[in-house]
Amino acid sequence: MQFPKGFLAAAIAAGIKPSGKTDLSCVVSDTDCVWAFAGTRSTTAAACVTRNREVYAAGGPVRALVVNAGNANAATGKRGANDNADIADALGSVLNVDQDAVLTASTGIIGHLLPMDKVLSGVEHLPEDLSPQADAFAAAIMTTDLVPKTASVTLSTGATIVGTAKGSGMIHPDMATMFAFAFTDAAVDQAALRAAFPAIVNRTFNAVTVDGDTSTNDMALVLANGQAGAVDSAEFLTALEGVMRDLARQIAADGEGATKLLTVRVAGAATEAEALAAARTCCVSPLLKSALHGNDPNWGRVIMAVGRSGAGVNIEKMTVAVQGTPVFAGRPLPYDAAAVSASMKADEVIFDVNLGVGEAVGEAWGCDLSAEYVSINAEYTT
Amino acid sequence: MQFPKGFLAAAIAAGIKPSGKTDLSCVVSDTDCVWAFAGTRSTTAAACVTRNREVYAAGGPVRALVVNAGNANAATGKRGANDNADIADALGSVLNVDQDAVLTASTGIIGHLLPMDKVLSGVEHLPEDLSPQADAFAAAIMTTDLVPKTASVTLSTGATIVGTAKGSGMIHPDMATMFAFAFTDAAVDQAALRAAFPAIVNRTFNAVTVDGDTSTNDMALVLANGQAGAVDSAEFLTALEGVMRDLARQIAADGEGATKLLTVRVAGAATEAEALAAARTCCVSPLLKSALHGNDPNWGRVIMAVGRSGAGVNIEKMTVAVQGTPVFAGRPLPYDAAAVSASMKADEVIFDVNLGVGEAVGEAWGCDLSAEYVSINAEYTT
Repeated sequence: MQFPKGFLAAAIAAGIKPSGKTDLSCVVSDTDCVWAFAGTRSTTAAACVTRNREVYAAGGPVRALVVNAGNANAATGKRGANDNADIADALGSVLNVDQDAVLTASTGIIGHLLPMDKVLSGVEHLPEDLSPQADAFAAAIMTTDLVPKTASVTLSTGATIVGTAKGSGMIHPDMATMFAFAFTDAAVDQAALRAAFPAIVNRTFNAVTVDGDTSTNDMALVLANGQAGAVDSAEFLTALEGVMRDLARQIAADGEGATKLLTVRVAGAATEAEALAAARTCCVSPLLKSALHGNDPNWGRVIMAVGRSGAGVNIEKMTVAVQGTPVFAGRPLPYDAAAVSASMKADEVIFDVNLGVGEAVGEAWGCDLSAEYVSINAEYTT
Repeated sequence: MQFPKGFLAAAIAAGIKPSGKTDLSCVVSDTDCVWAFAGTRSTTAAACVTRNREVYAAGGPVRALVVNAGNANAATGKRGANDNADIADALGSVLNVDQDAVLTASTGIIGHLLPMDKVLSGVEHLPEDLSPQADAFAAAIMTTDLVPKTASVTLSTGATIVGTAKGSGMIHPDMATMFAFAFTDAAVDQAALRAAFPAIVNRTFNAVTVDGDTSTNDMALVLANGQAGAVDSAEFLTALEGVMRDLARQIAADGEGATKLLTVRVAGAATEAEALAAARTCCVSPLLKSALHGNDPNWGRVIMAVGRSGAGVNIEKMTVAVQGTPVFAGRPLPYDAAAVSASMKADEVIFDVNLGVGEAVGEAWGCDLSAEYVSINAEYTT
């Protein structure tokens, strides 16, 4: 996949990941970008999120993003914050742009200092590898992901939006998923983009969950360099949300240990926020996720999860369907359990829930919970 | 274990559980009880919770509690509500007490109608088995629990408090755990008891979590018949909290698939609510629970979970210790990872966290996440 006009990327193996895989990468625009950003709501946010938030508040244009995988540089104290700033500084120097025009992102284990000699040496060599290809960048930002995640759309003017994401565990974003980066050559108004971005993030990345754990490093970014000219704002925002939704679903489907994608569509809610809360609480429920893994149409766990979400419910009018088969409508409905179980042996399983109180809708995505998730996460450091 | 004076219990196999184990039980006081109650905050609460809440609001005394296991009678519509009332009515009739003096509790699968012929026939026979022994009752309220859970304390006056609980999965109470029942022959003031009860529940049952899933049927109850006379109110409340704390820890240790108890003690918080939120978010984190299962001292996941909880943190003053070994103090500390991992091979693993902002403390309990949890819950109905 090609980046939009004016964007180039590079990815190298700097030696942060013990595996020797690519772990240091950057995306560079040859002209200034307007941008929007959402960072984790975690109160223990990593150095990269904290710094990007400060740069964001300053409101200036950006030119580059540098990403390392294999080390989150979180809970690393003042030295970690200095290391993060030094990386931005170093890339700014070799690109000959201001350090405040460089954003940073780190992902990997928490609580370890970065091997700065390797990182800084890697940053020096990054510009040698710049190319318009997005695939190497998408691979270099992975940690336990099994597949790189990209999505793109072409607007009616010919401008494009290319998105990349990573995320596999510690996925329950409260602002953004682990990483989701979108790049576009469309010319957009920064104020309008920033105003629209939180709601788009809320309906896409904040609606995906793998395990309910919110990372210290979550972030979503969109960079627009305008090189392909003006676009219709509504068309652009719809397209951007489509790219982000596509990436969010890819993250859920590639959840640690996952064998299938879980989609919960909620209708009949009092508000969109309640619809999203109900859908997301279903997707994070270990009991529902376990039942999904066993192809068990145990819809009582949907009732439980919706109840836990705090969303308003009229249980007499509430309905639940599993893969299109109605199983509850104010009371249990008779259904062919063996047939529904067989229908759950699919790459995507959809639960439709109507709360019976209003008109608002919301959708969330997750995955099944498998023994493999436990084994992946029982021995991550030792 | 013997119930306090004036309390008798009975337990029979009514045929609700396919296994043929005891599944229908009651506790009866031969004189009126003052009482306190906390029910699930779920918006899809089961019939028993809804009815008990109504009886509670009416404020009258109670005489009996009837419990069935194997079927939650939740999401069963109006017929389920009628069935629940009929059970209270039936036990009231055979005991010759008002039906509003009978509380109900159901636990088991959601979304199935009770086999009322078996239940009502069982209720008729319950009074034949009444005895002062608590153990058969504690066993009859179990579902996937491996062990019955009881705790007791004797006050300075000779009055006693006996508590029983059940809970193994779907444990993340938001008012109370699955079931926690305390009985006492102490004479206590109902208004004072009801005023103190929510905070006690908050520090005990609401501080335990197995999987983050809040049940439709959670409830905590205390019944006091006063037959052993007046007691010091402060002594009583402290003793009651001790019994409930003991039961809460037993529930966490017997979590589905659990091999060890997780205790997270938080200090240095701005408020008790923030301390409890931070502790509980650690205990519910699938990543921390998986690391615990693998004896992996991956304390970065504590940082992550605390950050996600929303509790106020001064990360420069924050500290973390694993089984007594300091691993973080504003920055990563050097420690012997192999030795700490070895110390985690214990029945209870304690994380001590100081948030570095205030004086408030809080404690929560959970368990490790194992592949066994997944297999228990992947095929519960089919």
